[in-house]
Amino acid sequence: MRIFTLALLACGLCSAQGADDCKPSSLNIPGAPYPCVHPDRRVTFRVAAPDAQKVQVRLGGAHDMIRGADGLWMATIPPQVAGFHYYSIVIDGSVVADPATRSFFGSGWDNSGIEISEPEADAAYYSAKDVPHGQVSQRWYYSKVTGKWRRCYVYTPPEYDSHPRLKYPVLYLFHGWGENEQGWHTQGHMDFILDNLIAEKKAKPMIIVMDNLNAVKPDEAATLYFARSIIARPSMADLAAPPGAGAGGSRPGFPANFGATFTELMLTDLIPMVEQTYRVLPGRENRAMAGLSMGGMQSFQTVLTNLDKFAYLGGFSGSSGGRGGFDPKTSNNGVFADAAAFNKKMKVLFLGIGSVEGPGTKNFSEALTKAGIHNVYFESPGTAHEWLTWRRCLNDFAPRIFK
Amino acid sequence: MRIFTLALLACGLCSAQGADDCKPSSLNIPGAPYPCVHPDRRVTFRVAAPDAQKVQVRLGGAHDMIRGADGLWMATIPPQVAGFHYYSIVIDGSVVADPATRSFFGSGWDNSGIEISEPEADAAYYSAKDVPHGQVSQRWYYSKVTGKWRRCYVYTPPEYDSHPRLKYPVLYLFHGWGENEQGWHTQGHMDFILDNLIAEKKAKPMIIVMDNLNAVKPDEAATLYFARSIIARPSMADLAAPPGAGAGGSRPGFPANFGATFTELMLTDLIPMVEQTYRVLPGRENRAMAGLSMGGMQSFQTVLTNLDKFAYLGGFSGSSGGRGGFDPKTSNNGVFADAAAFNKKMKVLFLGIGSVEGPGTKNFSEALTKAGIHNVYFESPGTAHEWLTWRRCLNDFAPRIFK
Repeated sequence: MRIFTLALLACGLCSAQGADDCKPSSLNIPGAPYPCVHPDRRVTFRVAAPDAQKVQVRLGGAHDMIRGADGLWMATIPPQVAGFHYYSIVIDGSVVADPATRSFFGSGWDNSGIEISEPEADAAYYSAKDVPHGQVSQRWYYSKVTGKWRRCYVYTPPEYDSHPRLKYPVLYLFHGWGENEQGWHTQGHMDFILDNLIAEKKAKPMIIVMDNLNAVKPDEAATLYFARSIIARPSMADLAAPPGAGAGGSRPGFPANFGATFTELMLTDLIPMVEQTYRVLPGRENRAMAGLSMGGMQSFQTVLTNLDKFAYLGGFSGSSGGRGGFDPKTSNNGVFADAAAFNKKMKVLFLGIGSVEGPGTKNFSEALTKAGIHNVYFESPGTAHEWLTWRRCLNDFAPRIFK
Repeated sequence: MRIFTLALLACGLCSAQGADDCKPSSLNIPGAPYPCVHPDRRVTFRVAAPDAQKVQVRLGGAHDMIRGADGLWMATIPPQVAGFHYYSIVIDGSVVADPATRSFFGSGWDNSGIEISEPEADAAYYSAKDVPHGQVSQRWYYSKVTGKWRRCYVYTPPEYDSHPRLKYPVLYLFHGWGENEQGWHTQGHMDFILDNLIAEKKAKPMIIVMDNLNAVKPDEAATLYFARSIIARPSMADLAAPPGAGAGGSRPGFPANFGATFTELMLTDLIPMVEQTYRVLPGRENRAMAGLSMGGMQSFQTVLTNLDKFAYLGGFSGSSGGRGGFDPKTSNNGVFADAAAFNKKMKVLFLGIGSVEGPGTKNFSEALTKAGIHNVYFESPGTAHEWLTWRRCLNDFAPRIFK
């Protein structure tokens, strides 16, 4: 069996090497030797900024770069947690993407991405193997709720085209704050994860639909979940405001009606379009919803208010709980109050988290268990609030549903 | 009928305005008011670089930006030719993408893009209308020629899934230098162009395959057509070399065996995979190849050496001629020497160009005509070597093939 890591796939023609032991990140543009990752997960960056006074790389915190005699700025930063991280470069106060990497939509703009390697064997589940491959298709559809054309992506399993009579269950799968409908197949490699699970008969062949959580009605104020990034701010006064976590973004407060318009769009436009366009098995037991971070919040909001339509729910580093104050009798409008009734309807309630992210999700899972609510708690060892955690969550969640 | 311009589609939640009469580019990140385009096609840019000494915008030439009292740099540049243009920002000598726009892979890196508007009616053919929509699907396949997994994109027409017995002809369609397999559906909007042509019964329903022209055998030196961008250069000495046309790129010379490996890959791996995976009509009269710029060169190279396999050929701002020295008796190994024989085989030979690009393609077309070779010459009025020219070329070419 041929196994190729994403390093080879994404980089294509990469062959240049940084320092002796430093491997170019798999997300670099073809031929770019930097950024590169050392065996101990230190990372070396290089930026050409011949006339700049100060250059920093921002990955987690800000790290000063040092100008060499040749005018190239370099920095080697301490060992990083494994996984996919957004980052940016600051050149004399200007926050920009590192031109040496491909860019990825996160925090509301196209910033840089770096893949801090895990051992090749650990990455196999999200790498392209010599197995049948499904397709990820771009699908445009008109939304009556927003009055606009929208784009979603639809994964169809490898056998979809060769079995023109078979019908499939559907997982609706969502991105996080500041990301979009491309995140799961670009940053998340959901296609390879499903191809591999299906080939090993660990997961049922399924359709996976990935849409954009931003949905605004014509008469509704745009909440712009995406657009509070430092880049889109209108003035230097705004620019001076403290940035939030991640590369250049500050997260807005979520409005009281968070997610209500998207839930309406999903029920009115998205699910009917999917069920008319694809060969879909009917009914709640063939419908799942999951998401990461803000997409997990949305999944809890949508599913817990529509238990007649979904039988599976996943929150990857995001749910309706985990911040304390959970009361099984009253939280989520009392949906958990009758545990037996809830357990009968909800086939899988999945809560995933990276071990570096803190105890909130574990506490929520335990509170649910204490209240008699069946749930699966999955902890990704050694990972943070980023795509490696969420790839692992999907890899654990997908085999549990539609059984 | 509902018609929405790409401005609405791509920008989504854009509502902020720049100056009174200046409309945010449709390619801005959500909420970003700049860059914006004035009615006379001047463009205003804004960059936050509070501590920089010198900031420029590079679109065609370099334009100095001016630092305002608020620390924001601004520039309004002269009227630009309509269409899609790559551009970049230079901050104290560092060439980077403008973080206020989505980024697009061109010149070998993810630089910025701006859409200089044409009148809305002129953009309708590449905009989403209320017609049946096809799908653009991401397809991974293994190449025996390169020994690697590769990604291509495949457009299937709207009716493809609902007519599971029908078979379709295939157009193989290619990007230009420094671009990749995503260009045609991201920058080119080929899906909307075909959806609209098919809905109006102007073009036959067809499958369109878009692959990456970079193909290197395991024992072959990487030619890295993509990686000569200023970004990937290893040293300041290289960085000081004069940049070529476009944003930060300098085009390498094409090697003597240009395109030979890709032709081999196409015949060995790509076409067999497509014909095994999709419902494809057999034979040369159901197979076309076209491309823009370097993709046009590749199309001429592949098709003119394989007339038994293709009956349609398109070069959009790129072909095998146009630089003088064309001799119908000897050029391209004499394939044009017997005009009657050539005309019998080649159903459509299409040469497209933007009127701002110079007379080379027109001269080539006239030389072919003089030699008795039937060909179609298409000139896009008022456009340059960019995607608006190529959208128009595809819109003119697609209705001519498979008739």
